[in-house]
Amino acid sequence: MSEPIEFFFDPASTYSYLAATQIEAFAKQHGTTVRWKPFLLGKAFEATGNKMPALVPAKGKYLFKDAALWARLYKVPFAFPKNFPLNSVLASRATIAASHAGQGVPFALAMFKAYWAEGQDLSLPEAVAAVARSVGLDGDALLAAAASQPVKDELRSNTEDAIARGVFGAPTFFIGKQMFWGNDRLPLMAAFINGELA
Amino acid sequence: MSEPIEFFFDPASTYSYLAATQIEAFAKQHGTTVRWKPFLLGKAFEATGNKMPALVPAKGKYLFKDAALWARLYKVPFAFPKNFPLNSVLASRATIAASHAGQGVPFALAMFKAYWAEGQDLSLPEAVAAVARSVGLDGDALLAAAASQPVKDELRSNTEDAIARGVFGAPTFFIGKQMFWGNDRLPLMAAFINGELA
Repeated sequence: MSEPIEFFFDPASTYSYLAATQIEAFAKQHGTTVRWKPFLLGKAFEATGNKMPALVPAKGKYLFKDAALWARLYKVPFAFPKNFPLNSVLASRATIAASHAGQGVPFALAMFKAYWAEGQDLSLPEAVAAVARSVGLDGDALLAAAASQPVKDELRSNTEDAIARGVFGAPTFFIGKQMFWGNDRLPLMAAFINGELA
Repeated sequence: MSEPIEFFFDPASTYSYLAATQIEAFAKQHGTTVRWKPFLLGKAFEATGNKMPALVPAKGKYLFKDAALWARLYKVPFAFPKNFPLNSVLASRATIAASHAGQGVPFALAMFKAYWAEGQDLSLPEAVAAVARSVGLDGDALLAAAASQPVKDELRSNTEDAIARGVFGAPTFFIGKQMFWGNDRLPLMAAFINGELA
């Protein structure tokens, strides 16, 4: 059994969505598991001086087309959100609350799909509650839990941990101390797990 | 026969080196060919507002380790250059001159290795002449050709063409109109060539 994969993601991040659609099957294929860790990418940008790629127009234009190609490769739906960028604090806290309720991964996947494929505005509590109900959770209870101090603290802690360990973008994976940045690092991670990079 | 792959690269770019070590075998495997196109990445940064990733310290720290992992994956030598960043104008012009002399690809590969694995300072004419001699070219003749107006014009033209087509980083590949940015896009390019993204 390999070390678990820590998966740091932000609901507002395109490539976090793409990676989220793959990471559980990837981990299973490589005999390991995933620890899903929502964090606030905006705080990592502030702490490191990194910036949203879309702030460089030529890069933003390319990355939109690039993400659509990855979605086709992965055979997952993709439609650029109407409300971009997303203030993802609520969605991130809700993902943690769903995890405490035993539905972290199904909620995270449904949440990502609602924003990155179905045009839902996840800054709205009702939209988040609808995602909760779609995975068998009580919407109002989830919203209440998302506003609780332990959940707020866990999101802050995830974010501080990520920044302290060198995270400047999303998604970011750790396998032990080894960090991998980007959906496009899955092949390199596979080689790492298989001992090909030793 | 697929469309040729246009490979825009800058000798100063880490991931251009890594991609350069793979692209000929990649093209052959996928039934196509490569057009090697040196361009001035710094001019693309100026034109688009993009910046060297190493200017974000956390990103620079990660990317150095990341590049070392890719080098292990590819089984190619890698040692971070002492003289970084490189003013790559001379090396880029020399690559074009070597191409005119029928040794473009061998020169480009030797040039990349000299800088990214052997610690040579390719801003020095003598270092560039030594690379030329290593691939059977006359060093002095290559330096003279690299200073000629047609070679200067071709580098400027490659750079203007790249910027006009949306290039903001290196390496950047085109297959027809489809652009791919980064050494890490080779798997996506393979899927594109194989018709999996249609």
